[in-house]
Amino acid sequence: MAQKPSIPKGTRDFSPQEMMRRTYIFETIKSVFRTFGYSPLETPAMENLSTLLGKYGDEGDKLLFKILNSGDYAAGLTDEQVRQASKISEKGLRYDLTVPFARYVVQHQGELVFPFKRFQIQPVWRADRPQKGRYREFYQCDVDVIGSKSLLNEVELVEIVERVFRKLGISVTLKMNNRKILYGIAETIGHADKMVDITVAIDKLEKIGLEAVKAELRERGIEEAAIERLQPILELSGSNMEKLAKLEQVIGSSETGRKGIEEMRTIFGYVEKLGIGLNVELDLSLARGLNYYTGAIFEVKANDYPIGSICGGGRYDDLTGIFGLPNTSGVGISFGADRIYDVMTGLELFPEAVNCTTEVLMLNFGGAEELAALGLLKRLRDLGIAAEIYPEAAKMKKQMEYANRRGIPQVVIVGSEELELRMATVKDMRSGEQTKVAFDIFEQHFE
Amino acid sequence: MAQKPSIPKGTRDFSPQEMMRRTYIFETIKSVFRTFGYSPLETPAMENLSTLLGKYGDEGDKLLFKILNSGDYAAGLTDEQVRQASKISEKGLRYDLTVPFARYVVQHQGELVFPFKRFQIQPVWRADRPQKGRYREFYQCDVDVIGSKSLLNEVELVEIVERVFRKLGISVTLKMNNRKILYGIAETIGHADKMVDITVAIDKLEKIGLEAVKAELRERGIEEAAIERLQPILELSGSNMEKLAKLEQVIGSSETGRKGIEEMRTIFGYVEKLGIGLNVELDLSLARGLNYYTGAIFEVKANDYPIGSICGGGRYDDLTGIFGLPNTSGVGISFGADRIYDVMTGLELFPEAVNCTTEVLMLNFGGAEELAALGLLKRLRDLGIAAEIYPEAAKMKKQMEYANRRGIPQVVIVGSEELELRMATVKDMRSGEQTKVAFDIFEQHFE
Repeated sequence: MAQKPSIPKGTRDFSPQEMMRRTYIFETIKSVFRTFGYSPLETPAMENLSTLLGKYGDEGDKLLFKILNSGDYAAGLTDEQVRQASKISEKGLRYDLTVPFARYVVQHQGELVFPFKRFQIQPVWRADRPQKGRYREFYQCDVDVIGSKSLLNEVELVEIVERVFRKLGISVTLKMNNRKILYGIAETIGHADKMVDITVAIDKLEKIGLEAVKAELRERGIEEAAIERLQPILELSGSNMEKLAKLEQVIGSSETGRKGIEEMRTIFGYVEKLGIGLNVELDLSLARGLNYYTGAIFEVKANDYPIGSICGGGRYDDLTGIFGLPNTSGVGISFGADRIYDVMTGLELFPEAVNCTTEVLMLNFGGAEELAALGLLKRLRDLGIAAEIYPEAAKMKKQMEYANRRGIPQVVIVGSEELELRMATVKDMRSGEQTKVAFDIFEQHFE
Repeated sequence: MAQKPSIPKGTRDFSPQEMMRRTYIFETIKSVFRTFGYSPLETPAMENLSTLLGKYGDEGDKLLFKILNSGDYAAGLTDEQVRQASKISEKGLRYDLTVPFARYVVQHQGELVFPFKRFQIQPVWRADRPQKGRYREFYQCDVDVIGSKSLLNEVELVEIVERVFRKLGISVTLKMNNRKILYGIAETIGHADKMVDITVAIDKLEKIGLEAVKAELRERGIEEAAIERLQPILELSGSNMEKLAKLEQVIGSSETGRKGIEEMRTIFGYVEKLGIGLNVELDLSLARGLNYYTGAIFEVKANDYPIGSICGGGRYDDLTGIFGLPNTSGVGISFGADRIYDVMTGLELFPEAVNCTTEVLMLNFGGAEELAALGLLKRLRDLGIAAEIYPEAAKMKKQMEYANRRGIPQVVIVGSEELELRMATVKDMRSGEQTKVAFDIFEQHFE
């Protein structure tokens, strides 16, 4: 056992400092969710494999962490049976929060009040190859409403994005798209089946330029005439409403396309009328979750920090169908806590107070001095101030070093002289300044 | 997929109402931990099996949930290899928070400042047979300090117990014992090796009476003369200090016993001098964790609700030795969230506010009325008030039913008349009372 212990690759310990910062992010997000009337929900880490398998594609199935049945599970099995794992594992760790949410809604549909608004902040596990910024255990932070088709829900999510990032101090742009518009574009040029191909090509416009995109479209089997018809869409500019107007001229013959345009007009209209102070941009190249989203698509990027999407989501018209409850529309977004953490660390956005766990350290000189310090300590704690006493009457240097290394900003000295005068010495560890504070009004100094 | 989905036995979904209540418990406990200068820590759900195996006894090893290696893990293995699971599983879900904490401290010893005070609130998993009140996934809520032998740490834990249960409104008794005293008793009567047997017999005193205990001691191989010497201990009464004084007369010849008595005198002395208003009781029959605790032992019981221990812990002199860092003493306690939840539910101790997620519902009448309602809604949310609007202009009856079923205490009506007069109607859902509130001062009504 002399070997230094370690943790599985792709997993992390969160140190006190990291925890303080993560808690700050989660609490900020949660407080906004609550303000909007979303209720907390938690589901178990393990789900039945029958719940998880087949929901994330073949690739996803391979990335599920499976749990061995307990007991003498594998005796007498053939290699083949073991390889299939069907007899030795019936449970897996959740892969996201969306499938467990859908499972919960179907399982408890009789008890729930719809529209059902819930948020869920829990870890998920994926057997991905670990690499920088990609972990096998990470938190998701989801907010969804299910059982309402109203676009007010989309508008509410825009407001939530605005409030969360304003509170965190991160300047962001919300990019929005709509799967119905993308379908309308593909349909208009006679390639309804190639919606994803077309979107993926458009997505590269900024990176590779107009001509290269056209070449790629040709490669993907779109003929010249169709590409011509796409031209105005590739050159869209102006305000969101202007873009929608131009778009309508091109794809207005597609019923689905018109519906998508109408949805976005409604959403952008509310955003304007409500004065939601967020940079919201219609971006036709946004190709997130095209396999399951059916309406609006959201993606948030930090304006001042080069990192991928820090929040995203969309409308799904049939989330619970896979569990036997059809026609239940939902819309939701997910905040990426790890990336938000990186942005805030990179831009130094964490408030000073988030970095210290203890505000006041009482030095310990033993005997009657210690007892007096303990009495003062109690009064600080009664006020909710995080305070502690060094647990032993160690050398003062050692105690001061403890305060320094822990980053405790204030140290209180109650030595024999202080005890006699009934005045504590309070030392500000940053400025080095010392103040005498009478025992009688001690706690007021820290309020 | 028509079959209703379910979750693995022994696991639970936590509904919004349960989550609100659980969050209340966790937040109360956390706020006390923080006030005492403890820092948050989180470790991964999965640990290497080498970290977990052999730490919880043979029985514990069997109760670990093991995770299948990902990939084509089991091809070409014999039945025997599979049964041993050594080639197909290298990771397990954590069984408690203590072993991961010890692993963390050893792994990060170079970066940590000692004494290291941490709290950790995370789920653990045990493949126990599920039954009423026993789950396969449950939260532990641990607070520990490591790297200090000072008894002030024990005193601090007594204060933490007092504050947590005072804040939660649960009347409790803290029972304390000391493994050194138990050893001293066994040593004094010439049966140092039978410490556990003797303690287990004493534990039954209240249930089966003095004579039956003596009979049991005889059965366990303690001879008559030794039982005679135990007699004063079985009849201990009076205050904690009086009990310790009597105990000293009996076991004063045992050095370990004397040390235990001295420790408890110090702890009880502080509790008295600091005026910690908690019923603390020396209870020699307390036999918790005798395999690993080496000094003080804690156990908390609710005074008004018949349920087992709701909090417990103790001093362990060599927690990190198993990972190669010897001589590092720690002391800690763990709060039982599930039982605390049951006590609070049983005694109806949850504050009213904990039961509702949304404080105000704005009814939706569409058009200009909706827009006005959205404006008012924003002002409520700016104040941090949890408020929402019904997302569609549905029939009023349906919207009111939604408010009722969700337990939303206040409903706001902005119909055509209200819009004209610029006065909202606020309905208190409990009393049925309606109030007119001018738009201009709308949010003030809810502050």
